[in-house]
Amino acid sequence: MNKVLLLPDSFKGSLTSGEVCRIMEEEILRAFPGCQVCSVPVAAGGEGSVDCFLAALGGERVETEVSGPCFEPLRAGYGLLEGGRTAVIEMAACAGLPLVGERKNPLRTTTYGVGQQMAHALDRGVTRIILGLGGSATNDGGAGAAAALGVRFLDASGRPFVPTGGTLANISKIDCSGLSERLREVELVVMCDIDNPLCGPRGAAAVFGPQKGADPETVKRLDSGLAWFAQVISRDLGTDVLSLPGGGAAGGMGAGVAALLGGRLTLGIQAVLDTIGFEKLAQGADLILTGEGRLDSQSLGGKVIAGVARRAKPLGVPVVAVVGGAESGLDELAPLGISAVFSICRGPQTLEKSMNEGAFYLRETMKNLMAFQKICR
Amino acid sequence: MNKVLLLPDSFKGSLTSGEVCRIMEEEILRAFPGCQVCSVPVAAGGEGSVDCFLAALGGERVETEVSGPCFEPLRAGYGLLEGGRTAVIEMAACAGLPLVGERKNPLRTTTYGVGQQMAHALDRGVTRIILGLGGSATNDGGAGAAAALGVRFLDASGRPFVPTGGTLANISKIDCSGLSERLREVELVVMCDIDNPLCGPRGAAAVFGPQKGADPETVKRLDSGLAWFAQVISRDLGTDVLSLPGGGAAGGMGAGVAALLGGRLTLGIQAVLDTIGFEKLAQGADLILTGEGRLDSQSLGGKVIAGVARRAKPLGVPVVAVVGGAESGLDELAPLGISAVFSICRGPQTLEKSMNEGAFYLRETMKNLMAFQKICR
Repeated sequence: MNKVLLLPDSFKGSLTSGEVCRIMEEEILRAFPGCQVCSVPVAAGGEGSVDCFLAALGGERVETEVSGPCFEPLRAGYGLLEGGRTAVIEMAACAGLPLVGERKNPLRTTTYGVGQQMAHALDRGVTRIILGLGGSATNDGGAGAAAALGVRFLDASGRPFVPTGGTLANISKIDCSGLSERLREVELVVMCDIDNPLCGPRGAAAVFGPQKGADPETVKRLDSGLAWFAQVISRDLGTDVLSLPGGGAAGGMGAGVAALLGGRLTLGIQAVLDTIGFEKLAQGADLILTGEGRLDSQSLGGKVIAGVARRAKPLGVPVVAVVGGAESGLDELAPLGISAVFSICRGPQTLEKSMNEGAFYLRETMKNLMAFQKICR
Repeated sequence: MNKVLLLPDSFKGSLTSGEVCRIMEEEILRAFPGCQVCSVPVAAGGEGSVDCFLAALGGERVETEVSGPCFEPLRAGYGLLEGGRTAVIEMAACAGLPLVGERKNPLRTTTYGVGQQMAHALDRGVTRIILGLGGSATNDGGAGAAAALGVRFLDASGRPFVPTGGTLANISKIDCSGLSERLREVELVVMCDIDNPLCGPRGAAAVFGPQKGADPETVKRLDSGLAWFAQVISRDLGTDVLSLPGGGAAGGMGAGVAALLGGRLTLGIQAVLDTIGFEKLAQGADLILTGEGRLDSQSLGGKVIAGVARRAKPLGVPVVAVVGGAESGLDELAPLGISAVFSICRGPQTLEKSMNEGAFYLRETMKNLMAFQKICR
């Protein structure tokens, strides 16, 4: 093998995508010392996305003082890639669930800091912002971030305020006239791996509210707040966000960034592949190795393996997936451009053992695959 | 791929070696329609050994009337290979545990029928007999079989009798002068995959007696019977069978055939490889595929995968094992000549599921391996 491209997702709860890359690369180079290995650890928008982009493409990590999820001061970082032309911001960095600890309260938490990071990047002159949704502690529909970028939310008495999950219902008018001019000029790519709508039984509050601390009563209040938010957006901006797939991502931030900030929702893996220049990187590769903890019908819907395969298929570069567990057979997977799938399991074993010893099992599987590869030549 | 040699053991409790061969062959031919596939389903001496040899080499199945394990009349078959030059006899066919049903009694059961089959084969003019030990209901040290072939066992009053497990202690003299002349001229290869000694805590009675129906008291009686048998053999024939590895196989038949009938104990897989002319078959093969239910330290000691690898190594033909579960890593296996090992498991799953759906999982694994093989070319 002369050239291999690594594009694994994390094995959730077991190995980060960076660890997966490292193990794959080590075993490839042990078997094929001269092989060119391009490692792109994929993170599809959540925590670790900035590091993954920096690891794959290099760049600068920028730290700034912003507002945390409870409006507290917080130092948080984002990434500058491509000589400062592209910023990568993960919302988890300043509105993430781990930041609130025990103080979970989706009625009061804000995405204000995310908007501040975006404003900072705009001041640095970026022409593209990649914004990763995921892992949020918030349910403010992205109103906080929009406020930080100049959108004014007015209450019934015409006073501007920064809405949170609990006060979305107080918005009586949205005024976008003050929105950052620079933002209108840049491309805003929003990594969003779920297709939940803003409201209703599959909406942001109902599905993700509980893990952010909402009891059933609060879920109802959050849901009706988001519904009202959608109604004002429709009236004042003429945009329907209720039917937007992914509108319910990150406490409704999917809807907010799309309608208020001109963001384009896209699958995380697509944003990664676009940013790394996948088609050029894959040129001349003998093999693309990808992987996830579990390859199931959800993965097939839009996650990393399927996303990689879809883009590799027209190039004719074979895609092999190494996974914790595969629930679909090759006959289903081959038409998607997946050439072969191997589990890291070495026999009947529990999920717990597979996850605890994930590094060992992945390495063992890579050893055997590389050995088999050598035989086949 | 132009030529592949299949040499799998059974996946015990899930798939026979014939079924493993069939699935492997189907998936190889689906991926490589022009490939020459040589299927040798391995059975290492137990039930199914005759069918395996016949499947691999062709030949004739011979049915005769013999004595069953309880001296009842029984029709049982053996195989004639190589134009009648070689007979394959599995002792399970006329002294097997399934034949006694609920009437388990290692004090009274006999291997007499095995000797009758051997005599029949000798009458047909064979020059080699392959005798598979395994799955026996007996504990007679092979005395029954020897009696059927002309060995005389005399009691204290000089009367000849056919000893069973319970009457070994009555032997006061062994007279081999009447042993079939023809038998002295043929090669007697005895397939024996265990190395247990005749007597003692690792001996035939202690280890295998209970599954043949012996309670602790009976185990003691069987063990001292075998010890006495060894003492008479030593005195009358000058042969020490107490230290013979495998002497305890099949209720002590390992010791009996070695000392009384001139049999050569050998690992089942070695007998198979010798008989099929392994070195010639493997010539020009791109790959040897083998497999077992479990690849563990026991397998490494002498079973099918290790046996195949040992013989393939000097030929430089790569050996790949497909297994239910692998307990050893490739770093341990590679020095033995095993190139790669893949489990049929597709993720964390139970042993029960892996076994119940073994055919599906094996096929899926073969599909993925063949697809990977295609990529690698």
